[in-house]
Amino acid sequence: MTLRPLRILLSPAVRQELARAIMQVMGEGAVELVSMGEAANTAQAGVDIAFVSRDVTGLSTKHELTQGLQDFYALLRRSDGLRWVHIHSAGADRPIFAELRARGVQVTTSSGANAEVVAQTALAGLLSLARRFPQLMAAQQARTWAPLVSGPLPRDLAGQTAVIVGWGPIGRRIAAFLRLLGLQVVVARHSPAPAPEEGVEMVGLAQLPAVLPRADWLVLACPLTPQTRALVDARSLALLPAGACLINVARGEVVVEAALISALQAGQLGGAYLDVFEHEPLDSASPLWALPQVIVTPHSAGHSDGNHRRVCALFLANLARWQAGQPLQHAIP
Amino acid sequence: MTLRPLRILLSPAVRQELARAIMQVMGEGAVELVSMGEAANTAQAGVDIAFVSRDVTGLSTKHELTQGLQDFYALLRRSDGLRWVHIHSAGADRPIFAELRARGVQVTTSSGANAEVVAQTALAGLLSLARRFPQLMAAQQARTWAPLVSGPLPRDLAGQTAVIVGWGPIGRRIAAFLRLLGLQVVVARHSPAPAPEEGVEMVGLAQLPAVLPRADWLVLACPLTPQTRALVDARSLALLPAGACLINVARGEVVVEAALISALQAGQLGGAYLDVFEHEPLDSASPLWALPQVIVTPHSAGHSDGNHRRVCALFLANLARWQAGQPLQHAIP
Repeated sequence: MTLRPLRILLSPAVRQELARAIMQVMGEGAVELVSMGEAANTAQAGVDIAFVSRDVTGLSTKHELTQGLQDFYALLRRSDGLRWVHIHSAGADRPIFAELRARGVQVTTSSGANAEVVAQTALAGLLSLARRFPQLMAAQQARTWAPLVSGPLPRDLAGQTAVIVGWGPIGRRIAAFLRLLGLQVVVARHSPAPAPEEGVEMVGLAQLPAVLPRADWLVLACPLTPQTRALVDARSLALLPAGACLINVARGEVVVEAALISALQAGQLGGAYLDVFEHEPLDSASPLWALPQVIVTPHSAGHSDGNHRRVCALFLANLARWQAGQPLQHAIP
Repeated sequence: MTLRPLRILLSPAVRQELARAIMQVMGEGAVELVSMGEAANTAQAGVDIAFVSRDVTGLSTKHELTQGLQDFYALLRRSDGLRWVHIHSAGADRPIFAELRARGVQVTTSSGANAEVVAQTALAGLLSLARRFPQLMAAQQARTWAPLVSGPLPRDLAGQTAVIVGWGPIGRRIAAFLRLLGLQVVVARHSPAPAPEEGVEMVGLAQLPAVLPRADWLVLACPLTPQTRALVDARSLALLPAGACLINVARGEVVVEAALISALQAGQLGGAYLDVFEHEPLDSASPLWALPQVIVTPHSAGHSDGNHRRVCALFLANLARWQAGQPLQHAIP
């Protein structure tokens, strides 16, 4: 039993935005909304619930934290009574969350909130590579008219095969788009013996090496787990047909970046669209920035103006479940 | 009645490739296949049928012809008995075809052969603009990690509206993709009072001004006709909501390029993907090359390795119809 009001940690902006909605869910007087600014008292008392909205993360990456995010995490670590943290992202692979879960804190994600956007960005990357946009935009910058008539032509996408790793909301949407484009879709997912679904062929992650030789496109849309860490290594890349392309909108650590760079430099890989990297921000000395047929974006595949509303709706829905004593959605097991 | 064999003009490569198939359709001895190389005799006799395959056009544009294409056209002009020309493109707006049709020569196009590819390229351009790839790829070139967190975020595509001009094979495929992306689709087409179809709203071209204020995206996928020439002028562009984007995979002359440049420079248009231009090749001095949020490609939206096979199949199917005395498909009326 909580005798004092439940303390919920929010960003100042989200606190202002959601105060009324939270009071409606929880009842007036049952909660105390706190933000980092007034940490003097909060620091002693700690918080019970925290909502890591996008503005809390700010310009932090998984590997390099702003001072504001460090302070936020420090308060979570000091809060002995912390019971639940909701986060804006679909992945919960930052080390703080493993640490909190080890203490018994529930961590819930915003799985699905930006899935449509991430899938569209993956599709933008795939189509840009298929239609040679990096080459054509380099010609544009040089003000050169260089039509795609000499040299090998782009290949028809219809009839090609994509292997998608991951069958969450993002992987499912990517599959739907690629099927409409006429591609064959093979999905490698965590469950060991998945049944075929929605017109796609399903294999377990352990069978990935068996399907890679058929992949014109290898599309990563999986969470970072012990099973997916370094899944795409030199051996996996060598199993792809020459000229295949990689799309990574999952996590950088799913790919062994040195092996990826070697495969691109050797021409074994035909191109890549990469939104995520082993270390973020990507080092300015990385060869990935300047390789032809490689598109690098700064972990922004899911950024869109509608996400904040969707993430807040997921937090509020979970808050209502919390209040009703129901299990939370999108909890990391 | 043709007493001598029917003379069919082909590129040397296509002549070699299709000789057997043509003989199977027409019967041995009924045709004589000719190419430009042996023009001495041909020039006197002229040809009856010509197949303008992609390699005949080569690096020519509509406005600047290679010597090889000029020679090919000259032979068509000299051939008094010319009755039918099949062309590799979906559009028949080059002046030579109007000239031949005025003489009673049938002109058939390869409508649909590259529709899937052009639609995919239009989608690549649209998604690249929606996901800020021009800006992100400029940051890539500068080796700068600049995530999309400050400044206005990209907008959710779902719920936006696209106005597509043209309802041929290309427009229909673009509509299908955009509907799967969650966009509302309005189609403006030539027929005056079209019925709604396949979940899209239909208006006649005359009603275009009435729907432009709703267009987040204006997508041009129409043939160049007297009705579509200069359709997108300063007045049309001013009717679009501020920040709307233009996709042109139709013909450059559908847009008044000076008005387009002004609207982009003024920020009234938020971006453009342009594969076609009033004059091709685009002049190296054109501001279009260097405007931010503008992607310029060199009339290559339809170039793909499967097109040649599809175009040849359409030519052969029409040849069989010719032989059987049936009306040809995709004839320009």
